[in-house]
Amino acid sequence: MSLSVAVAGASGYAGGELLRLLAQHPELEVRTVTAHSNAGQPLVSVHPNLRSLASLTFQETTAEVLAGHDVVFLALPHGHSGGIAAQLPESTLVVDAGADHRLESAEEWQRYYGTEHAGTWPYGMPELMLADGGRQRRELRAARRIAVPGCNATAVTLALAPGVAAGLVDTTAITSVLAVGSSGAGRAAKTHLLAAELTGSATPYGVGGTHRHLPEIAQNLRAAGGSDIRHSFTPVLVPMSRGILATVTAPLIGEATAEQVRSAWLTAYGDEAFIHITPAGEYPRTADVLGSNSVHLGVGLDEAAGRVVVIAAIDNLGKGTAGAAIQSANIALGLDEQLGLSIDGLAP
Amino acid sequence: MSLSVAVAGASGYAGGELLRLLAQHPELEVRTVTAHSNAGQPLVSVHPNLRSLASLTFQETTAEVLAGHDVVFLALPHGHSGGIAAQLPESTLVVDAGADHRLESAEEWQRYYGTEHAGTWPYGMPELMLADGGRQRRELRAARRIAVPGCNATAVTLALAPGVAAGLVDTTAITSVLAVGSSGAGRAAKTHLLAAELTGSATPYGVGGTHRHLPEIAQNLRAAGGSDIRHSFTPVLVPMSRGILATVTAPLIGEATAEQVRSAWLTAYGDEAFIHITPAGEYPRTADVLGSNSVHLGVGLDEAAGRVVVIAAIDNLGKGTAGAAIQSANIALGLDEQLGLSIDGLAP
Amino acid sequence: MSLSVAVAGASGYAGGELLRLLAQHPELEVRTVTAHSNAGQPLVSVHPNLRSLASLTFQETTAEVLAGHDVVFLALPHGHSGGIAAQLPESTLVVDAGADHRLESAEEWQRYYGTEHAGTWPYGMPELMLADGGRQRRELRAARRIAVPGCNATAVTLALAPGVAAGLVDTTAITSVLAVGSSGAGRAAKTHLLAAELTGSATPYGVGGTHRHLPEIAQNLRAAGGSDIRHSFTPVLVPMSRGILATVTAPLIGEATAEQVRSAWLTAYGDEAFIHITPAGEYPRTADVLGSNSVHLGVGLDEAAGRVVVIAAIDNLGKGTAGAAIQSANIALGLDEQLGLSIDGLAP
Amino acid sequence: MSLSVAVAGASGYAGGELLRLLAQHPELEVRTVTAHSNAGQPLVSVHPNLRSLASLTFQETTAEVLAGHDVVFLALPHGHSGGIAAQLPESTLVVDAGADHRLESAEEWQRYYGTEHAGTWPYGMPELMLADGGRQRRELRAARRIAVPGCNATAVTLALAPGVAAGLVDTTAITSVLAVGSSGAGRAAKTHLLAAELTGSATPYGVGGTHRHLPEIAQNLRAAGGSDIRHSFTPVLVPMSRGILATVTAPLIGEATAEQVRSAWLTAYGDEAFIHITPAGEYPRTADVLGSNSVHLGVGLDEAAGRVVVIAAIDNLGKGTAGAAIQSANIALGLDEQLGLSIDGLAP
Repeated sequence: MSLSVAVAGASGYAGGELLRLLAQHPELEVRTVTAHSNAGQPLVSVHPNLRSLASLTFQETTAEVLAGHDVVFLALPHGHSGGIAAQLPESTLVVDAGADHRLESAEEWQRYYGTEHAGTWPYGMPELMLADGGRQRRELRAARRIAVPGCNATAVTLALAPGVAAGLVDTTAITSVLAVGSSGAGRAAKTHLLAAELTGSATPYGVGGTHRHLPEIAQNLRAAGGSDIRHSFTPVLVPMSRGILATVTAPLIGEATAEQVRSAWLTAYGDEAFIHITPAGEYPRTADVLGSNSVHLGVGLDEAAGRVVVIAAIDNLGKGTAGAAIQSANIALGLDEQLGLSIDGLAP
Repeated sequence: MSLSVAVAGASGYAGGELLRLLAQHPELEVRTVTAHSNAGQPLVSVHPNLRSLASLTFQETTAEVLAGHDVVFLALPHGHSGGIAAQLPESTLVVDAGADHRLESAEEWQRYYGTEHAGTWPYGMPELMLADGGRQRRELRAARRIAVPGCNATAVTLALAPGVAAGLVDTTAITSVLAVGSSGAGRAAKTHLLAAELTGSATPYGVGGTHRHLPEIAQNLRAAGGSDIRHSFTPVLVPMSRGILATVTAPLIGEATAEQVRSAWLTAYGDEAFIHITPAGEYPRTADVLGSNSVHLGVGLDEAAGRVVVIAAIDNLGKGTAGAAIQSANIALGLDEQLGLSIDGLAP
Repeated sequence: MSLSVAVAGASGYAGGELLRLLAQHPELEVRTVTAHSNAGQPLVSVHPNLRSLASLTFQETTAEVLAGHDVVFLALPHGHSGGIAAQLPESTLVVDAGADHRLESAEEWQRYYGTEHAGTWPYGMPELMLADGGRQRRELRAARRIAVPGCNATAVTLALAPGVAAGLVDTTAITSVLAVGSSGAGRAAKTHLLAAELTGSATPYGVGGTHRHLPEIAQNLRAAGGSDIRHSFTPVLVPMSRGILATVTAPLIGEATAEQVRSAWLTAYGDEAFIHITPAGEYPRTADVLGSNSVHLGVGLDEAAGRVVVIAAIDNLGKGTAGAAIQSANIALGLDEQLGLSIDGLAP
Repeated sequence: MSLSVAVAGASGYAGGELLRLLAQHPELEVRTVTAHSNAGQPLVSVHPNLRSLASLTFQETTAEVLAGHDVVFLALPHGHSGGIAAQLPESTLVVDAGADHRLESAEEWQRYYGTEHAGTWPYGMPELMLADGGRQRRELRAARRIAVPGCNATAVTLALAPGVAAGLVDTTAITSVLAVGSSGAGRAAKTHLLAAELTGSATPYGVGGTHRHLPEIAQNLRAAGGSDIRHSFTPVLVPMSRGILATVTAPLIGEATAEQVRSAWLTAYGDEAFIHITPAGEYPRTADVLGSNSVHLGVGLDEAAGRVVVIAAIDNLGKGTAGAAIQSANIALGLDEQLGLSIDGLAP
């Protein structure tokens, strides 16, 4: 078959990982890449790791350039997707790796991003539990517009949704602390993101209650059946280039053994190829999911504290962004959901 | 003056940092170092960074070797301090960097460590608030036995104690997640601590409710005025050799503004040379305290979540171990508390 | 088709990477994995990253267990391959990732390894230039025994062979300094390989003229047409888990421009899918080849010093070990040489 | 006594390390700090690690602001020192951490930096051997202008000078490869210096024969008695924030045993407090000199290759910049040369 693909905003880290995965996808073929300041340059001048795409050159990011492809992936800065997408044919599958179309509430978008809301698209998290027992996957079949989840939201949501759906965890006292690789902060040249600053240090960012990931996570947990969501969320940059390790805790509702708690997650994700629950008493690490589309979840019950503890490991650029984009595109296109994606991570 | 010092168990990371600090202490002079498997070897064969102590050779760790010094620092594996200390004269200042003499409850010691309790010594955390408004410092003056706090306990306790003392935080729902440098796991050769395993990865360890640091932290928070302590605690190894970044949260009790919350910490630590509260809206990173005895605390209120968020940065080997040992020894010896210690960290 | 595969010594880093690559190979199917101390354990208890092989369990490393497969990969400690291989049928393709069968000279083997020589097998470096203008690839077609090159030897050899073959470089004054990721030192638990020791530091190992990689490199450069090989070789462990960056220099013979020098490499490797020469004035970095089978080479002429400078980047576990093993196996089996291997690296 | 100090260009990494060291110097007191874009901001807003200097605020970098101090340290971008220095009184000790006054040849300055030469100042490398058997130290006594060596030049020069002075090494075929921490590339926000780019990778920079460090090193080796200097020099950024590990090799002249070679270095540096020669067969690592003013040198003879191999470890910001500046200032001021400097490094 071989469907034609364009990637807009392909000079950043998300765009680069999309291209790396697309290059090995058997049914999708990258024909066009666009960028802003790098337009006119060879792709490999920005992504020297992508030798298999050495024939490509960045073009300007315009609707004209993007038109005429079967699939368009958008990896643009927040606020730039809506305008471009509106100019693309409805028959084109448009997958937005940015935030523009994730939130259902125009008011929340306005509050957290300060611009006009571009509208809501089907949310590209296939494994997300829905309150009626279904999965988000069903919303993606034959969709022609997909909003890719944020990487931090992916880690926290997949960690907690089964417990919310099962009524096991109190959503009014969630705490999440995420160890995040520096690619999660993007490719813009900023002093505080220099290697000399971040190497050998753990550095919090975006501390407090106004983090942009919060409304997205709350929306997801409500979809899973939660109602009142109160969530303390702290990301910490640590000296690795990729990866998120999210430690998510919430009070246990009622009485349950550790085994009963774990079984809720095992049941919820038993059929999911990309989600793995570690054995009882073991917890995941990010090295094991690098470059993959996998989510490793360690689920435990801290009886003394009365809290469920879930630790989630993902690759922020993989399942956290580009992998989820391709997985959702596969579903929308009627392809095998796993096509072009890896379950195995690059460790050590 | 110049007091004579022996360091027992000097071949590990805690011992090495003790020696590094003692080498530049104007009133303390290292005369003797002991080790187990390295006995008979030059100190610099194990610690090639300590050239100023190149004349020293490891001796066996026996009471005979340690006797006759003004101060003895013990950096032995847990469970080994009690026997040695009992054989040293009461007039010798003995500072134990291990866990043996930290806990007040023999029962808790037995439960968490599985051996007989060696007794309780004055606890070497000078800045710890006491419920009567005093500081732990007063217990250390003229003490001849001091138990040095654990590094993780130091970060969490100093982060939270002012809030507990001020009645601002609910101690029944504390959560702590710590990004920890790999020296915190010690120098024993274990596969899962190899550089190839930990580099490029975030790796949780000791997840769940039975962590040995829990009773120590609870004891401290009770000393600060807390009663029922319930605490979810998760340490995560990240790719740095030193440093702890603890993200500690607890529900706010009653109503308070962010400014009111911060002022509790500012008041509590206003006179403390080694504790620094970052400006409102800013948070600390570990690079800034490396090699120092400083604690950097960022204090915030997450209004939406209703939680106080405190982020603490320390050097696990500095203020977390060796720095605290020397600071407490200074107090016990009637010296300037800051002698031989640095406020400034080694960044970048 | 699907040929059956066994991997012996699969618990180490080389074995793990072999399995990761084999799991995605369309024509090879891993049926059996063996290990020494981990025999009886599930594969994923040692390699939690390899979820797609979760059904496998380590067996003992015996000829009986390995027999009956179409292909056997050996990733055993040096000195252990010869005995096992001798017991396997001649019709089985045996690919040895260890050193046992690399050297042609029994005397050199004896001198560098101290044990009896197990014999010489066809050398698995397809791109190696031979003095008659051919490539080593021809020796691998239909071979049933293959010796996989060492990772350091791969980097240095591929960096220099075109210059040797073209008579451009003086082989009597070669110098190589390699920045090496810690997985290159293996998985044995040793204190000096702990993360706390290697993080934040550059650490030389194996300095001096008796390094085991030297005879292998010299043999390769003689194959490329060199005669007297004198080579100063220094590997340095740096804080990354994977990757080798080799800086290789040798005096220029006669007169040549930088462009003439570069054209020798461009010509030599123009048809090689896995070897990329960076544009003039640019040099490679290891991030761009992580997880791939690619070699990136930067070739320059330092006119003032009169030396050719070649910088080679490879993944020590990829093209340096497991990738080369599979590439050579593909050739021996008559498959597409690139099958199951990636040209694109995992950056950032 | 307490002499007053100003530091110009104090917002960069070199300036920060100067301040960290000056803060603990018993005879020098920082009164004034200047910066360009950060003028008007508190020092600790840029250097949050320097709490002991929290009372200082950056001022503009003008001769007026700098005048009236006993000592002025300049840590300005290359090309900016000459103009400022010319306006400071001759009686003020001015120590320039930039390149402006290092080179003796105005022509070489012009060729490598492209601007007018600001003149040559006494060179701040006290331990440098001079061809007549003396040390550079004598040029610094009572000097009122000092040019601080470059960090890479320090590592290579101190590694090789004893062999040059002793006539043991052939200076026409020197090769140096340096593993360099990312602070060595400065604090300017550039994409290729982001943590996401450099973490997990080894990245060469400034490859080839036109590196600005070359004329400085050649000048030093001529001072040590060399004549024709030909030097292949390659720095490689590796994932650490500080440190240089220089692997320097040169052909042995004539016949000598490894012991004879080592004894040349042992003799040359026997009286130097900050230079340590590792035991035979051992080599230094950067962790052991972090934060210190020490140089660790491993000296060997590769008999098969006929080359002397010297590996030098320094902290690029310590002995490589700020430490050397203070050491030289101590000499010029008639103070104890070691004042305010540490021999012991911060490992692990």
